[in-house]
Amino acid sequence: MSDDATFVKPGEDFVRDSSYITDRITVDGRDGWPVEAGRYRLVVSRACPWANRALITRRLLGLEDAISMGVCGPTHDARSWTFDLDPDGKDPVLGYERLQQAFLARFPDYPKGITVPALVDVPSGQVVTNDYPQMTIDMSLEWTAHHRDGAPELYPLALRAEIDDVAEKVFHDVNNGVYKCGFAGSQGSYEEAYDALFARLDWLEQRLTDRRYLVGDTLTEADVRLWTTLVRFDAVYHGHFKANRNKLTEMPALWAYARDLFQTPGFGDTQDFAQIKEHYYLVHNEINPSGIVPKGPDLRGWLTPHGRESLGGKPFGEGTPPGPVSAAETVDPAHTPLG
Amino acid sequence: MSDDATFVKPGEDFVRDSSYITDRITVDGRDGWPVEAGRYRLVVSRACPWANRALITRRLLGLEDAISMGVCGPTHDARSWTFDLDPDGKDPVLGYERLQQAFLARFPDYPKGITVPALVDVPSGQVVTNDYPQMTIDMSLEWTAHHRDGAPELYPLALRAEIDDVAEKVFHDVNNGVYKCGFAGSQGSYEEAYDALFARLDWLEQRLTDRRYLVGDTLTEADVRLWTTLVRFDAVYHGHFKANRNKLTEMPALWAYARDLFQTPGFGDTQDFAQIKEHYYLVHNEINPSGIVPKGPDLRGWLTPHGRESLGGKPFGEGTPPGPVSAAETVDPAHTPLG
Repeated sequence: MSDDATFVKPGEDFVRDSSYITDRITVDGRDGWPVEAGRYRLVVSRACPWANRALITRRLLGLEDAISMGVCGPTHDARSWTFDLDPDGKDPVLGYERLQQAFLARFPDYPKGITVPALVDVPSGQVVTNDYPQMTIDMSLEWTAHHRDGAPELYPLALRAEIDDVAEKVFHDVNNGVYKCGFAGSQGSYEEAYDALFARLDWLEQRLTDRRYLVGDTLTEADVRLWTTLVRFDAVYHGHFKANRNKLTEMPALWAYARDLFQTPGFGDTQDFAQIKEHYYLVHNEINPSGIVPKGPDLRGWLTPHGRESLGGKPFGEGTPPGPVSAAETVDPAHTPLG
Repeated sequence: MSDDATFVKPGEDFVRDSSYITDRITVDGRDGWPVEAGRYRLVVSRACPWANRALITRRLLGLEDAISMGVCGPTHDARSWTFDLDPDGKDPVLGYERLQQAFLARFPDYPKGITVPALVDVPSGQVVTNDYPQMTIDMSLEWTAHHRDGAPELYPLALRAEIDDVAEKVFHDVNNGVYKCGFAGSQGSYEEAYDALFARLDWLEQRLTDRRYLVGDTLTEADVRLWTTLVRFDAVYHGHFKANRNKLTEMPALWAYARDLFQTPGFGDTQDFAQIKEHYYLVHNEINPSGIVPKGPDLRGWLTPHGRESLGGKPFGEGTPPGPVSAAETVDPAHTPLG
């Protein structure tokens, strides 16, 4: 996701601009973008929860060789995400300094936010899509020919209606709900978002008390979508966005669920807590003008036993976990409790 | 305490101006201010941790009839604390709208911050002292003729050296330490204060694991001084001041100790959490420009069993707890879990 220079509009609710470039990469290539190994580059920032969905899904499905990845740094200016983590400040495949260049290569007058995750067509250097909810579903359903052996079914036909229903509730109240708390333009608007957020977390706490995963008994798209918010909750949303009825660590089922996934290959190994904190606390200077980044919280709890195995369920169904992260994509050990 | 309009000095540590009006009210009246029931008015804000010390001490010692109390509202402007909670915006005894008037009545060109707690001489309307560390000690040692039956010894001779030593450590690293975190002018300055704060809290956690109170086996001045910071920790310092390695609720001995005192007459019954949050989140607009006051945390935990009785100790020594708070000084039930 991107962030405009202005987040808080006094007196107003926070409203997310949800109009994206809706082209899809499909087997039949109906939008002009056929599935093709090596052709597209996924551009993410590890800080961003919306990009984190694509990063996790790519790992779980083993699409690393089919879809390469460029990683933007955690902070950015009004012109958005940059490749400042790369040695010479340029993405080594696209040759760009800014993700914006891929948007302008396709739409010279592109008027909206420059957002991650984005899939870029490498030959033309043009952005194909930044429609993140469709992107992960297409990774599941359109890229099957390139899935690793043992890849899980994250969006199985029989569970789609339930996954969609849960994901819709989680989007409004949790994924986007924390932003509605943090960028509220009035006390009333904040309190409404806070109430909806914690009512939904209570609902999730109850749902996850006696079942290991959100839908069915394996990992699905619904888990990926919830988890990228949960993993950032205590590090950012609790303090920075004032989502502070309680920490995630104070909700026993949700906290154990979040640790279970953290410790599952493909989830925790994508997390860079230092980049996550830098992003929120430095980019949102309207709500953190000092630019000081909190040193806490203590992250060691993420590695403690979660005891969720006793609930049954099979994370990868009939499949298997992904292998280790490649050396090139390994998170700085200083930025994660896994390090 | 007061707060200047500017809290954060970029690039600098936060340095508290600790020069106060050092006159004392004593039995011998050596500074011109003899102990005399009904003559002085204690001006506090329930929001302020430094004023909270005097409020608790006055309750524990039963000085309510001897020293009346005026209560300023939680927020203020650059001219500091006002009596905006009183029906016509004036303290009913002093007739002032602003505490500043008592300072100017004594020193027409008073150049420093207008701070609570302050003791004001009612006949002249002049401030006597705002020297908060001396103030509570003098309540213990100079006002003995007016203590209630069963009042505890909060600063007993045999324990003074140890109380002073603990209080000094707690002041620098905890009481003022949280402010050094929150008002740090640089990342390095913040991190230094954060490390000192949590190292000291770890030390306190250990100290309080097998002893009920900080010094000796009864409540003392040392407990009063530590507690007014602990009770504000999760509500304010954890998020607003980024003192976020963990919440107080995550340190078992300290959290049980804090609940034990909360549930002891004279401590919890002085707390107005709504005013505490309003003060910090509205007055410090440099670090919370949106002016949105967090709705959390959930306060119900303060009333849960603490189990500290098993450590022994006698809160009031050979004395007794204070009676109920007078109707006039009872905290709004909507602002406290006791309500």
